[in-house]
Amino acid sequence: MIETVYSRAWLRCLRADLPDSLTSPEEVAKCELASFLGKGCFEIKADGSSSEEYSIKESNGFYTISGGKAGVLYGAYTLIFALETGAALPNGSVKPYYPLRMLNSWDNMEGSWERGYAGRSLWFDIGEFCYSEKRIRFLGRMLASAGINVLVINTVNVHYPAQELIRDKLSGLARFAALLRPFNVRLMVSVDFAMPLAAGLTTADPLDKEVIDWWRERARCVWSAVPDLAGFMVKADSEHRPGPNEYNRTHAEGANMLARAIAPYGGKLVWRAFVYNCLQDWRDTATDRANAAYDLYMPLDGAFDENVILQIKHGPFDFQVREPLSPLLLGLKHTYKALEVQLAQEYTGQQIDIYAMPPMWQEIFAQMDAESVSAVSAVSNLGNSEFWTGHPFALLNLYAFGRFAVNPYAEPRAVISEWAFLSCGMDDESTAKLTDLLLASRSVYEKYASQLGLGWMVTPNSHYGVNPWGYEFQSWGTYNRADRNAVGVDRTDSGTGYTSQYPDELRRLYENKASCPDKLLLFFHRLPYDYMMRDGRTLIQRIYDDHFEGCEAAEAMKPVLSSLPLPEPVKEAALRFIEEQIKNAREWRDVINTFFHRLSGIPDARGRRIYD
Amino acid sequence: MIETVYSRAWLRCLRADLPDSLTSPEEVAKCELASFLGKGCFEIKADGSSSEEYSIKESNGFYTISGGKAGVLYGAYTLIFALETGAALPNGSVKPYYPLRMLNSWDNMEGSWERGYAGRSLWFDIGEFCYSEKRIRFLGRMLASAGINVLVINTVNVHYPAQELIRDKLSGLARFAALLRPFNVRLMVSVDFAMPLAAGLTTADPLDKEVIDWWRERARCVWSAVPDLAGFMVKADSEHRPGPNEYNRTHAEGANMLARAIAPYGGKLVWRAFVYNCLQDWRDTATDRANAAYDLYMPLDGAFDENVILQIKHGPFDFQVREPLSPLLLGLKHTYKALEVQLAQEYTGQQIDIYAMPPMWQEIFAQMDAESVSAVSAVSNLGNSEFWTGHPFALLNLYAFGRFAVNPYAEPRAVISEWAFLSCGMDDESTAKLTDLLLASRSVYEKYASQLGLGWMVTPNSHYGVNPWGYEFQSWGTYNRADRNAVGVDRTDSGTGYTSQYPDELRRLYENKASCPDKLLLFFHRLPYDYMMRDGRTLIQRIYDDHFEGCEAAEAMKPVLSSLPLPEPVKEAALRFIEEQIKNAREWRDVINTFFHRLSGIPDARGRRIYD
Repeated sequence: MIETVYSRAWLRCLRADLPDSLTSPEEVAKCELASFLGKGCFEIKADGSSSEEYSIKESNGFYTISGGKAGVLYGAYTLIFALETGAALPNGSVKPYYPLRMLNSWDNMEGSWERGYAGRSLWFDIGEFCYSEKRIRFLGRMLASAGINVLVINTVNVHYPAQELIRDKLSGLARFAALLRPFNVRLMVSVDFAMPLAAGLTTADPLDKEVIDWWRERARCVWSAVPDLAGFMVKADSEHRPGPNEYNRTHAEGANMLARAIAPYGGKLVWRAFVYNCLQDWRDTATDRANAAYDLYMPLDGAFDENVILQIKHGPFDFQVREPLSPLLLGLKHTYKALEVQLAQEYTGQQIDIYAMPPMWQEIFAQMDAESVSAVSAVSNLGNSEFWTGHPFALLNLYAFGRFAVNPYAEPRAVISEWAFLSCGMDDESTAKLTDLLLASRSVYEKYASQLGLGWMVTPNSHYGVNPWGYEFQSWGTYNRADRNAVGVDRTDSGTGYTSQYPDELRRLYENKASCPDKLLLFFHRLPYDYMMRDGRTLIQRIYDDHFEGCEAAEAMKPVLSSLPLPEPVKEAALRFIEEQIKNAREWRDVINTFFHRLSGIPDARGRRIYD
Repeated sequence: MIETVYSRAWLRCLRADLPDSLTSPEEVAKCELASFLGKGCFEIKADGSSSEEYSIKESNGFYTISGGKAGVLYGAYTLIFALETGAALPNGSVKPYYPLRMLNSWDNMEGSWERGYAGRSLWFDIGEFCYSEKRIRFLGRMLASAGINVLVINTVNVHYPAQELIRDKLSGLARFAALLRPFNVRLMVSVDFAMPLAAGLTTADPLDKEVIDWWRERARCVWSAVPDLAGFMVKADSEHRPGPNEYNRTHAEGANMLARAIAPYGGKLVWRAFVYNCLQDWRDTATDRANAAYDLYMPLDGAFDENVILQIKHGPFDFQVREPLSPLLLGLKHTYKALEVQLAQEYTGQQIDIYAMPPMWQEIFAQMDAESVSAVSAVSNLGNSEFWTGHPFALLNLYAFGRFAVNPYAEPRAVISEWAFLSCGMDDESTAKLTDLLLASRSVYEKYASQLGLGWMVTPNSHYGVNPWGYEFQSWGTYNRADRNAVGVDRTDSGTGYTSQYPDELRRLYENKASCPDKLLLFFHRLPYDYMMRDGRTLIQRIYDDHFEGCEAAEAMKPVLSSLPLPEPVKEAALRFIEEQIKNAREWRDVINTFFHRLSGIPDARGRRIYD
């Protein structure tokens, strides 16, 4: 799979494979530079510290990279990419913004991949570690060159036998960790809160002494096998996962117990805040799933130990195309937090439709103080399929996530353009064209698939394709409550009160229909179809217009892609996928327009075809 | 599993197991009677023919059963049940009405069971035959005592390795056939039309000489291993199954080729008429899936060989709660036909909701000449779960299917009452109460889940639970086309023309809104919500009323079941399942009422709660 330059992702300029003898980031850095620059053109000065900081100096074509052990590796990739793209070298000493830049791979040990859209697991099969070392080493280069330094290797829904990663399968974990260590990538493991029960204890109560001792002993064994393990990740009391609530303990009590077990080894306990009632009654209009995480965790602010990180999805729901920033990210002041985004395109086209995420992340970091979180975490989009991600352009999201983790103020156009050139090596004009197409891709998708902040109009379970009421009468708390007169959920003070979770300024912005951004209007408000939008169009007309325009924009991508001198097999794949995307876009356009036309009875003002 | 009298289904009066040494129906008959009546009380006079005819004579408490080899077995069970229930013995010579009384078990060889709701396959696992001989012998008694004489042992969707049933796994087939032979049950196998391709031929074209020869040789091998195999069953050109259309051959050409291969051995070729375009565009309102089978097969009437049987589902769609009789059953005059019904409760509560089918079959036989079909075929509801069928009352449908196959003019109340007494052994009053409950159960289910002939408002794929627009924008041709003003599809001459497939009298009945039966009104007509029904209620009010009443009727079953002296564990199961059924009924009531209320905006005239 990594035999062609195209499955080498954005590393196509690195033509040589790495030998399997390299054991440290410094050695990797030297080897990469030696084959890219030639020997005698550079010097690596690692100061022996574990710092990720580095500086690059140039003098008469001779490059000196100084820094910590990990830093020099990042310096090497920065230098290679700068030389390849013509970008300027960084001034002075630089280091990644976030100390933890995490990729969460939702792999099951039997080899499948939860919410994965690009083949199967790269390292698990039939309940065992199973991988090509060569491919994992290449993965290490991809992660390191993007700037990612933690890999969570199993899904947060810990299904058998993944519990055994921290017990019977520990030696496999250690061998896998060793493979990625030279790339400054540390592993993390998702653990099962109820594992003490499987181990024969009568409880998993986090305040029970036997349970506490059991986890302590487990941590001791785990870190003696993998001394640099980054930590444990936990999904608890969520979507049928076990957790401390079963024992009438708080999430702080649950998390702190685990955190204390792993603290002696420097481990972090990443606790996911994705907790809500997934057995809601659709008849219940008072309960709002959007409120759940804030309601649960705000009272616990300050109650978590120093090595607990609360990992919070960027929006209050679940990776919809457009959600407002999670108020929990803004509200918690005394809790270490990680921002969680999803590269796997669960609700965003499943790596068939083009959907470049950097504009989304720019918006996120524009709404929050980057310093308010101490880590960033992304659900992986990588599997063993073609181009690692299915659609070759989906690799952009992995690369760009790394860029934003290293610098949350990164500029989307620059990141996309850099990726496009590194990956496809086209002339400047073509690179710019591809960059424009990718930059616009989210808003294209949003227009046909999820405009005005309405989400969840998707096929239940698979989440692929349009189904406007597929989730409407189900238990997941995800309703549009459309009827013949109006659509949307009132989340203001007069409704479910969700807006009150925001700081005053944002609260006022969202609370008022007149000031609420159009793109979130139906997220926060319930509005009649004849509601007059700021631009002078009615709501229903805007719904129709957006869907027609979104579909046209998807169709317009095809000639652009056809005209680009993309390398093969990228071009063949891009042209194949765009056909599917156009088909999807038409389906979204027609189904959603028909849905609202059947309900509202209002015709399109421009007389375009809406089916009965 | 068959250790308790309750998993002995309606055979609880037969307390002894059969020895494994019995090899003929006559021996089984003797053994059953000897243990039920005692030796010396009866005589069996088998005339050596293979006839299923028999007579029973009684003289001073001594019974003489005369008839063909199979006939005497049916006579024995008739006698036992008559003595047990107090029913009269048949006068003179009797025989089952249909020569082929088929049970279609949709088992996959890996052990799962397509559209099965009661555990896993009784005879397949991990791609092999895998069964308890004792259990299969008991199954044989169940089938024989109900009157069923053919078992199709694998699903019509022939997935690997089920193709090999007629090749590599033929010895297993022969052993399994031998187990059921003493019960006058012959096997049939579903075959893959494209199997010649898997066998290395370059085509499966039914007019290709190599293909013809290949099937001939296969048939020779199969019947030399299982000389009394009943035949092959085929699903072709349907739901992605291969078929003759791929080679521009008609279904008659495809079926006849297979029929000729097996004719020398007396095999029947059962060809399923369940063929439609499953990739329909929901935007296309001219195409009507209901039309498909008639359009395809009427031009072929008379073109099928003598040993081809066209197996036709009772309605034009797919086992919905209420469909009009398939016009193909009425239209074909020169083709052997089998009527297909479904015991597996795919759309009818999945063996959780109570749904007794005899009233449905009575309606079917009231609409067609029983003689116009030469066989009846039922999709099985049996698996390896509790009571064989999950809900213990679901066993009624298997028993009753046998009764209707033996006598299509059977009386539902009599059949249900007989089953109830044989299965539960309660006093007359309790048996009558249970009989009433079961007799009414279909109309209860219909009221809350599918009234007025509207079907398909179910969760896609699973078909369990309510989802009014789950299928609305999909490719399956199953639309209600509800909007803010009206609901239903116009299938009259002014619409899709489906009504024109019926004989004149029925056509006029259905064509006219005023004469069309209420229960099929929305199957044939598109009507506004304020349409005035014959009973003076508006359509929308009727929708609301039916759903409230259906749900109340489901709730009212619970005290009846509680009051009955059902034997344990039947009672425990019945009380457990009724809780689920009531929950389902409430969900149906509220979702459907809300759906139509959101669309129509019309309140319930009686002010009952309809959720927003």
